[in-house]
Amino acid sequence: MDTGRAPVTVVGLGQMGSALATTLVETGHPVTAWNRSAGRARAVADRGVRVAETPREAITASRLVVVCLRDYAAVHAVLDPVVDALAGRTLVNLTSGSPEQARETATWAATHGVDYLDGAIMTTPPGVGSPEVMFLFAGAEAAFTTHRPTLAALGDPLHLGTDPGLASLYDVALLGLMWSTMTGWLHGTALVGAERTPATAFTPVALRWLATVGTFLTRYAGQVDAGRYPGDDATVDIQIAAIEHLIHAAADRGVDNALPELLRDMMRKAEAGGHGADSYASLITVLRPSAGAR
Amino acid sequence: MDTGRAPVTVVGLGQMGSALATTLVETGHPVTAWNRSAGRARAVADRGVRVAETPREAITASRLVVVCLRDYAAVHAVLDPVVDALAGRTLVNLTSGSPEQARETATWAATHGVDYLDGAIMTTPPGVGSPEVMFLFAGAEAAFTTHRPTLAALGDPLHLGTDPGLASLYDVALLGLMWSTMTGWLHGTALVGAERTPATAFTPVALRWLATVGTFLTRYAGQVDAGRYPGDDATVDIQIAAIEHLIHAAADRGVDNALPELLRDMMRKAEAGGHGADSYASLITVLRPSAGAR
Ligand SMILES: NC(=O)c1ccc[n+]([C@@H]2O[C@H](COP(=O)([O-])OP(=O)(O)OC[C@H]3O[C@@H](n4cnc5c(N)ncnc54)[C@H](OP(=O)(O)O)[C@@H]3O)[C@@H](O)[C@H]2O)c1
Ligand SMILES: NC(=O)c1ccc[n+]([C@@H]2O[C@H](COP(=O)([O-])OP(=O)(O)OC[C@H]3O[C@@H](n4cnc5c(N)ncnc54)[C@H](OP(=O)(O)O)[C@@H]3O)[C@@H](O)[C@H]2O)c1
Repeated sequence: MDTGRAPVTVVGLGQMGSALATTLVETGHPVTAWNRSAGRARAVADRGVRVAETPREAITASRLVVVCLRDYAAVHAVLDPVVDALAGRTLVNLTSGSPEQARETATWAATHGVDYLDGAIMTTPPGVGSPEVMFLFAGAEAAFTTHRPTLAALGDPLHLGTDPGLASLYDVALLGLMWSTMTGWLHGTALVGAERTPATAFTPVALRWLATVGTFLTRYAGQVDAGRYPGDDATVDIQIAAIEHLIHAAADRGVDNALPELLRDMMRKAEAGGHGADSYASLITVLRPSAGAR
Repeated sequence: MDTGRAPVTVVGLGQMGSALATTLVETGHPVTAWNRSAGRARAVADRGVRVAETPREAITASRLVVVCLRDYAAVHAVLDPVVDALAGRTLVNLTSGSPEQARETATWAATHGVDYLDGAIMTTPPGVGSPEVMFLFAGAEAAFTTHRPTLAALGDPLHLGTDPGLASLYDVALLGLMWSTMTGWLHGTALVGAERTPATAFTPVALRWLATVGTFLTRYAGQVDAGRYPGDDATVDIQIAAIEHLIHAAADRGVDNALPELLRDMMRKAEAGGHGADSYASLITVLRPSAGAR
């Protein structure tokens, strides 16, 4: 069946690559894929993905080539020998790595006449295909614009800028936010759990509260950019007083306090830097020492 | 004008008490208020709040008495001498404090024939009156049910349980989640800021990501309650590998890594406890050592 949708090649059929390939097939794209080992390829072949024998055969099937392998070393191991076949096509690299690896790969691609977009997938495989899920891209804007309709089958594609390192920089920054949030939630869960409150009772309240916290982040983002942190909603001094209550309540209940103690220490550093009457956004000066001079 | 709305007394006209009193007046409740110092009382009097000369005069004006003072010491300093006037009324204490202080005050109230609800306000004064904002309550369910329509003028009233300590326990647990989230966001902001990405550009992406993280919390809440942490979405081992990327990228850019390094240490403790192939929810065993035995 010719659906009129653009053909796509997927290199790598691990957990994530398989989700990408099957989602693209389900949305009507002809998909050709390749994977080092054959086992995983068989599962997606059953779902309508054409499995190529070699990377070269896969690449030459489509103008858009999506690669999702374990790491950048694997990307180069697979693609370096066939870079001539990639010339004139667009390579979208959804493999996780560092901004430096992304930039280096963009340079390698440019040298060989390959249009390059670096990307980051902000979900686990079952989330692929959901329109709320962000797929972050960085690199040539024209390549993004051209292939956006296809990339939109995978999630909501956002172009962050032409610096190809930006997608992976955002990726690690967002994962850091995730770990902080999950650990803060686990600490609260442990605390209320000590009084026999189930996690499933605490969490809906925590989620509503996170929406409120989101409004604080929006307000503080403007303060960070302005380099001024007016404490008219709540000051660092007030937060220091309040976190002592948390630490005390948690210590009484045998909950590990390493996280809130670290946060208190960071607040105290901001206070020592003259930000006691400023908002929590002033802690950026502790995290990014050069910001103190702004 | 008689709106038919229940009269309310507000004791304490600090920043928060003033917001409570004026919001109640604006929604049609006759409000009588008292404050230790006269200056703040004058501002709310201009907005339709009747200002009483003494705590006793204020209390006897309404069956529902809301108190919001700096701390529990202030609550007792003001209310102990007039507890006889409180008998037969409902006291709603929105002052921040510890679960122990809430329980002690509930006992004191019960001894004197006062119905008591302890509460926590999950916003700053400008948020008062908004239907999304949570007002957490704990204590006698009947008192909550009776006064719920009035309390709903201030925000969305949630009753957490009959243990009067629960509102302040949730309060500190949620504030802990807030500090963790805000600091994780600031770390990410500092990181992308090192590549000239403004906080106001990063934050909308961070907020969308937080919504995705919320779905992880919901899944993990069930795992915490079950005491089993299947790592079928992402394992602790994978997170440890990924946080090294974050730490490396941040170190390269001069961003303070105390927070991600602590989070990595906690992940490593979970791994050492046998949870390397489990989900992030298994870090509850690090925070609440007794959970390891479950
Ligand atoms: N899973 C997620 O939730 C998630 C989320 C966001 C981003 N990611 C990223 O997506 C990428 C893939 O993750 P995944 O979950 O799909 O991992 P996975 O299930 O472990 O799959 C790894 C893939 O890489 C291939 N590979 C590894 N080394 C290779 C080499 N030297 N030569 C050729 N192929 C090689 C594997 O081929 P074989 O089948 O032959 O071993 C397999 O196709 C990673 O960078 C990951 O960080 C994953
Ligand atoms: N502001 C917020 O964003 C916020 C959010 C959630 C919860 N809260 C909690 O709400 C409560 C009040 O906060 P706020 O922001 O309104 O503080 P505030 O503006 O500093 O007001 C403090 C109030 O307490 C009174 N007070 C203090 N000591 C007293 C004493 N010994 N006797 C009688 N009155 C005394 C003050 O009276 P005078 O005017 O005579 O000094 C004033 O009415 C606190 O427990 C706070 O943690 C505040």
